[in-house]
Amino acid sequence: MKSFGVKSWVFPQPVLIIGSYDANGAPDAMNAAWGGQYESNQVMVSLGSHRTTENIKAKGAFTVSFATAGTVTQCDYVGIVSANDDPDKMKKSGLHAKKAGKVDAPLFEELPFALECKLVKFNEDGILVGEIVDAVADEKILTDGKIDPAKLNAIVFDPVNAAYLKLGEKVGNAFKDGEKLK
Amino acid sequence: MKSFGVKSWVFPQPVLIIGSYDANGAPDAMNAAWGGQYESNQVMVSLGSHRTTENIKAKGAFTVSFATAGTVTQCDYVGIVSANDDPDKMKKSGLHAKKAGKVDAPLFEELPFALECKLVKFNEDGILVGEIVDAVADEKILTDGKIDPAKLNAIVFDPVNAAYLKLGEKVGNAFKDGEKLK
Repeated sequence: MKSFGVKSWVFPQPVLIIGSYDANGAPDAMNAAWGGQYESNQVMVSLGSHRTTENIKAKGAFTVSFATAGTVTQCDYVGIVSANDDPDKMKKSGLHAKKAGKVDAPLFEELPFALECKLVKFNEDGILVGEIVDAVADEKILTDGKIDPAKLNAIVFDPVNAAYLKLGEKVGNAFKDGEKLK
Repeated sequence: MKSFGVKSWVFPQPVLIIGSYDANGAPDAMNAAWGGQYESNQVMVSLGSHRTTENIKAKGAFTVSFATAGTVTQCDYVGIVSANDDPDKMKKSGLHAKKAGKVDAPLFEELPFALECKLVKFNEDGILVGEIVDAVADEKILTDGKIDPAKLNAIVFDPVNAAYLKLGEKVGNAFKDGEKLK
């Protein structure tokens, strides 16, 4: 085994686009890879100190959309530019905000799958914890009423090579394939 | 947008294989998808109450390996069978434990990429938080000394369809592609 030392290398990481409104109702989007499912109805996101962090504290809500192969440039952009530095960030981003159905936070027209979340707290370690109040998907990524991964075309973050990777074909059934070893 | 309600649908989720020793030094492996990077040198895993949870409390250490396309059956198996129910779990699993280099926890010969972690705590929500003390990779998944995603062949969990998906080709460069929108 080759040792690489202390690295932030959970592999792979999701590409979470966090949507929020500021106190004046202006939308922001932020790319975050340090996050995941926390409890069955909760998500966690390690945000750090950003405009998004302040927005979520002000509004008590946020959305988590999943970046796609068709929006790599837009989704990368919202991770490297802060609305604190460029007031035109969202205009340049190419992402178009629309109000979420169940929380006071924006969804984005270009991102077809999202979780609408209420702020639970920033926990003892300063990590954002949110309660999922709805999962929503654009009709165009559904097949027979179910979310179709091939149509969603989500990406993940490879932290070793700082690359975005597509998802590929299905190779197994969870909670089922392992039965044959019992 | 179609509403699906409250769902555990962070998309996609990693397939984390948590390695631990019990108080007598017997290895266990457990499949966990609710986890991710927590801080730059920390991981979080929502384990629930399992043999693995007790092991980590006893030993203060664990490993996080990443499931691969070639080990779908084995990795699914360790998620559906508990060592509490079947003492022969690890023998049947097809995963072969070997001691990690830096922590008192097992790596698995069939899983070529892993993080070695020390227990930091179970946090206020009962979630496992660990400190990454080393990232280790088998030489066979390296190209020019770097981890090669094509050789690693990691999988992710699609929680909507309870499916395991392969990763596909690179579609972008993180912290770089977005520069063109500035």
